[in-house]
Amino acid sequence: MSTQKPPTAAVIGTGTIALGWIALFAARGLRVRVSSTRPDAAEYVTEALPGYAATLPDGALDPATLLDRISFVADLRDAVADADLVQENAPEDLALKQKLFARVADAAPPGALLLSSTSTLLPDQLGAELAEPGRVVVGHPFNPPHIVPLVEVVGARGADPALVARAVDFYRGLGKHPVVLRRALPGFVANRLQTALLREAIHLVREGVVTVGELDTVVTSSIGQRWAVVGPFEAFHLGGGPGGLRHWFAHLGAGLERGWESLGRPPADEETVETILAQADLSFARRPYPELAARRDRRQNAVIAALRTEDPAAPAPDSARTSPAVSQA
Amino acid sequence: MSTQKPPTAAVIGTGTIALGWIALFAARGLRVRVSSTRPDAAEYVTEALPGYAATLPDGALDPATLLDRISFVADLRDAVADADLVQENAPEDLALKQKLFARVADAAPPGALLLSSTSTLLPDQLGAELAEPGRVVVGHPFNPPHIVPLVEVVGARGADPALVARAVDFYRGLGKHPVVLRRALPGFVANRLQTALLREAIHLVREGVVTVGELDTVVTSSIGQRWAVVGPFEAFHLGGGPGGLRHWFAHLGAGLERGWESLGRPPADEETVETILAQADLSFARRPYPELAARRDRRQNAVIAALRTEDPAAPAPDSARTSPAVSQA
Repeated sequence: MSTQKPPTAAVIGTGTIALGWIALFAARGLRVRVSSTRPDAAEYVTEALPGYAATLPDGALDPATLLDRISFVADLRDAVADADLVQENAPEDLALKQKLFARVADAAPPGALLLSSTSTLLPDQLGAELAEPGRVVVGHPFNPPHIVPLVEVVGARGADPALVARAVDFYRGLGKHPVVLRRALPGFVANRLQTALLREAIHLVREGVVTVGELDTVVTSSIGQRWAVVGPFEAFHLGGGPGGLRHWFAHLGAGLERGWESLGRPPADEETVETILAQADLSFARRPYPELAARRDRRQNAVIAALRTEDPAAPAPDSARTSPAVSQA
Repeated sequence: MSTQKPPTAAVIGTGTIALGWIALFAARGLRVRVSSTRPDAAEYVTEALPGYAATLPDGALDPATLLDRISFVADLRDAVADADLVQENAPEDLALKQKLFARVADAAPPGALLLSSTSTLLPDQLGAELAEPGRVVVGHPFNPPHIVPLVEVVGARGADPALVARAVDFYRGLGKHPVVLRRALPGFVANRLQTALLREAIHLVREGVVTVGELDTVVTSSIGQRWAVVGPFEAFHLGGGPGGLRHWFAHLGAGLERGWESLGRPPADEETVETILAQADLSFARRPYPELAARRDRRQNAVIAALRTEDPAAPAPDSARTSPAVSQA
């Protein structure tokens, strides 16, 4: 579809992730069909949308403008009937998603992109009940999807590379940073990295080295800012001096494995969780949730804008602001 | 010292970390005495300084202005004789640092702050040869110290809390974000968290899920930007929806420990290192080191400036730009 008329996206679900997609798709000019099991989906989305419209990375848009592009379609088959793409955000229940995708594949146009926001299930599993099991592609965003650039894209084993490429083109056209994973592993990449860091963070809190609030300050004042700018491998490359990563590994040598062995292996038992919750209550959790969320989004958009200005080579959503195309199969 | 005349800082060493401190101290108006075992210390620092002066977070300064405030003192005793504080950046050799601090304590004024940039040694060990073993305080920066805000501050067991408080005041006066650790653990906090994430990053590269360059893109497009803005605990609090961290833990439940168990345990053998180096050579390492380092610093300063504008409550180095005080014991 090289096209005059904007593509049509069917969004399944109205959870946090779905709402982010709905807002972003509408902001980029797509026609959005929302399919939800909530009987009050239209009211619910209409009420939530202003918070998303206010925090779009390229600047706030009038929620009414977005709502004009959104329709609510109770029947799943009707919602996907003329969709160029389907972005599924149902609960993380494999059997439910398998049945859902079988119905979607049956009702959607044969060339429609079938995309899943799943964070825990694998693309091979999701398409298992389809005539073409490789048709479902994972497009896993990072919360909230209307702000954070990453989308992890991964097809089923043996999926047509052209299909994965179409998914990448679609997300890139929205201004996202899609990264194709070469194979699927539970948790994909970003969440696995988060999990590894969280484990040590919980260890350090349990050991009484820092509180929950202090740990957060350590991260935002150091590795957070650093990794907004260069990834961990490039950071260590630069940390190695002019000898780069080779020097860094040589210098560290056996210390690397020793460091790994000395990492904590905390339990995630009730006592640990209660300790963390009690400390959080004395820190950020004293402030109301909507205020914290708004501050997070405002600050993240400021970081994104600063990086875009500083490095014009980075993908610029603005260039895709109008009429992103969904290429045909 | 409430004082008219600027404080005097003795900086021991001329490595990467020392250079960052030298540049920052001079930029903030301190008189800096550099003590180094390099016979060509003056030439070496003079040549390196422009790169630091150009990347100061509040804007570039003329290297000549900084050099006016810096003197090179071959003899350690002379360098520390009238110092208000000493920031030590010698190689990570415990015996060497212990002897060094014994000599420093002997020659420096009795009220001088004795600070160590060590990233691997513990404050209890560093002061072992002093009459007052608790006098050495770790002030561990994140590289490069003239840009990244964090300083991890930790005193020896039983150290006078007022001494640790003086170190905090000093770093805060420079515009840094000091975080006091409640006890010292090898690697402190930020480096342990980095180590945990790096381990999983190496696992994912070994498993062929992503390349080194792709992994870096995943991080800069998601968790990096996120953790520049909110720490991991607050991020999960907000990820839990209005129920916050409690909901997040309850929802995840046993999945948290399962996730930890499924993390990789890669070897750090030669094959692994060579795989990473080869992939790095096809990615960021194609570009010259000085260009990469300059880009990193430029982008990081842009992020810092954006966050400061967005959240004026954050510490503003500007307010401390002139005559930071070093309080007396």
